[in-house]
Amino acid sequence: MRVAILAHEKFPGRAKTALGVLRYADYEAVAVLDRESAGSRVSDHVPDVQDAPIVEGMDDLEADEVDALLIGIAPIGGGFDESWRSDVRTALEYGCDVISGLHYFLEDDEEFVELAEENGCELRDVRKPDDDLTVAEGIAGDVDAEVITTVGTDCSVGKMTVSMRLARDAREAGYDVGVIPTGQTGIMIEGWGNPIDRVVSDFTAGAVEEMIVEKGDEHDYLIVEGQGSIVHPAYSAVTCGILHGSMPDKLVLCHDAGREVVHGYESFDLPSIPTYVDLYENLSAPVAEAEVVAGALNTSDLEDDAAREAVDEYADALGAPATDVIRHDTDEILEVILE
Amino acid sequence: MRVAILAHEKFPGRAKTALGVLRYADYEAVAVLDRESAGSRVSDHVPDVQDAPIVEGMDDLEADEVDALLIGIAPIGGGFDESWRSDVRTALEYGCDVISGLHYFLEDDEEFVELAEENGCELRDVRKPDDDLTVAEGIAGDVDAEVITTVGTDCSVGKMTVSMRLARDAREAGYDVGVIPTGQTGIMIEGWGNPIDRVVSDFTAGAVEEMIVEKGDEHDYLIVEGQGSIVHPAYSAVTCGILHGSMPDKLVLCHDAGREVVHGYESFDLPSIPTYVDLYENLSAPVAEAEVVAGALNTSDLEDDAAREAVDEYADALGAPATDVIRHDTDEILEVILE
Repeated sequence: MRVAILAHEKFPGRAKTALGVLRYADYEAVAVLDRESAGSRVSDHVPDVQDAPIVEGMDDLEADEVDALLIGIAPIGGGFDESWRSDVRTALEYGCDVISGLHYFLEDDEEFVELAEENGCELRDVRKPDDDLTVAEGIAGDVDAEVITTVGTDCSVGKMTVSMRLARDAREAGYDVGVIPTGQTGIMIEGWGNPIDRVVSDFTAGAVEEMIVEKGDEHDYLIVEGQGSIVHPAYSAVTCGILHGSMPDKLVLCHDAGREVVHGYESFDLPSIPTYVDLYENLSAPVAEAEVVAGALNTSDLEDDAAREAVDEYADALGAPATDVIRHDTDEILEVILE
Repeated sequence: MRVAILAHEKFPGRAKTALGVLRYADYEAVAVLDRESAGSRVSDHVPDVQDAPIVEGMDDLEADEVDALLIGIAPIGGGFDESWRSDVRTALEYGCDVISGLHYFLEDDEEFVELAEENGCELRDVRKPDDDLTVAEGIAGDVDAEVITTVGTDCSVGKMTVSMRLARDAREAGYDVGVIPTGQTGIMIEGWGNPIDRVVSDFTAGAVEEMIVEKGDEHDYLIVEGQGSIVHPAYSAVTCGILHGSMPDKLVLCHDAGREVVHGYESFDLPSIPTYVDLYENLSAPVAEAEVVAGALNTSDLEDDAAREAVDEYADALGAPATDVIRHDTDEILEVILE
C-alpha cells in the first residue's frame, strides 16, 4: 500500500505516529505532508527511516500514485485540526482511504462520509474499538506462542518502539514473531489491533486476550505492545488489563534514562527499578508466572558515553541484560527473550 | 421516594440489587414484584431488612402509591427479560420513573421512551456512564476526607455490602461518612455514582477521582466501593483503576470464607491472604500510601462456631482486626478505620 502521511508543522519531532510508520510499517511512503518543511526530504531530518519527499499537501500528489492518506500526528486532546480538511477532502476525491487514530472519528464527519461514499473509499478510525469485545476468559496462556509483553516505568518511555524493533530484529534473525498492537501507532503500523485505552474498562483484558487468541497459534512468539505504567495515577488500569489479559511468559521493562517523576504528574516519584520488577512480577504471578528478563532504556537525551553507562547501570538495577534498541543492538536481550 | 422493586423468580437468593436496596437505601419499599413468591412478605424470607409485601406485578399496586420502579435483578449478560415488559409499561403509565442497572439500556427501547415521554417520567439507566468523564489528574489525595477503599480477593466477596454496612454503622455512631458508589447496586442505593466497569478504560481512575473530588470536602470520611480483585484474570483493570483513582488512606480487604479459586475462573488459585495484603499495599504505595487496616469475611456458608473461628483465622492472616459485617458487629474494625 502506497501512503501519504499527514504531519503538518510537526515533522519529525512531534510526529510520533508518522515516524513509527516510516520506521516500522510495510507501507510504501509516497510523501509526508508538512507545509512547514515542504521541499525537503525525510532523510534531511531523520537518518534511519524510510525516505520520502515532504510536500505541502495532497494537491502536490497525483491521484494514481497514492492509495491511502494516514493522519500521522495527534494534537493534545486528539481533535481534528480544520487546517487538515482540504488534504482529507482531496485524498477522498482521489479515491484514497483515510486512516486516523484521532479521538475525533472521521466516520462522524458528514462531509467525509459523503465523499468516501461518492468515491468508493474507506474511513478507518483505528481508535474506535470493535463492537463485539467482551470480558476475558483467562485463556491467553493456552496459545502455542511464547508471549512477551513490554511494560514500562511510565508513559512515553518507548514501549511501542521497543516492541516493533524487537519484532523486526527477531524476524531478521529468522524467528517467527507476531506483534499485538494495543495503541494507535502500533495499530497504524501493523494495520490491525484494538485500541485498549478506548475499550470499556471491563473488557480491557478481554480485548487483549482476543488478539492473542487470534494470532497465538500462527507464530512462535508474540510481542505485546504495553501501555502506561502499573503505578501511573491515571493509566494504570489499562496497564493492568494488558498485563493480565496477555498472560505473558516474559516481560521487558522499558524506561527513559533520567526520568524520575511521572510525566505530566510531577508530584509522583517513580519507584526504583527493582521495585518495578517486583511489582510487575508479583502482580502477574497469580494469573501468569512471568519474569522481567530484559530491559530497554531510552537514552536519546544522552551523549554516547553517558548512554552506554546508563544502559549498564540499568542492567545492574534490573539484574538482567538491557539495551537502547535505537542506539545499540538488540542481540543480547533477544537472546534471553527468544531462548 | 416510594419504590417498587422488580425481582421476578429470583427473590431473595439471586436478587442482590433488590436486597441491597431493601437493606441500605433510604427509599420506602412499597412492594417487591416476584410472581413466584407473591402473597408472602419480605420478612418471611429475610429477617434483617426493610419489610414489604411481595406482589405479582405492577398491576397489584395503585398509581398513586409508588414513585419509581427499580429493576432489582440482573440476568447473566445483563439483558432485559421480555416477561418484565408489562411491569415496566404499567409503571410508566402510572407516571413512575424506572431505574435500571442492566447492560440493556431502557433509553434504547422505543416503546419505553415513548411511554416515558407521554407520561412525563424518566428512564434512568444507572449503568450508562456520564459523557463528560476524562483521565485522572492524580488529585483525589488532596481532599479533606479520609478515604477508605474496600478491596477484595475476588469478585462477589461482599465489597458493596461491607462498604454500605460500614458507612451505616459509622453514621449511627455519629461519624460523617460518605459512600462513593462504583457499581450498579451501590449506585441504586445511593442514588448517584459512576458505573466504573462501563467507562472507557483510560478514564477508569478519572471516573473515581471525579466522585472523590465532588464529595471529598463534604464529609470527614469517604468509603469507596471496590470492584473485582487486583489479580482477577478479567476484571483487574477496573480494580487497579479504583485503587489508584481513589488514592486511599486505608484499605479494607474483603474475602469469602472458603473461597480458594477465582469464581468462574476455577483454574486460577487465589493467592494467600498475606500475598493480597502485600500486592494491594505495594501497588498503591507509589500513588498513595495505604495500609490494609481491617478485614471483612463473608461467612454466610458456615455455622456459628465455624464462622467465629474463620474470622479469627482471617484476622491472624491479615495481621489486622476482622469481622463478618452481616453476622457480627463492626465495632472493632470501625475503630481502626475511623481512628
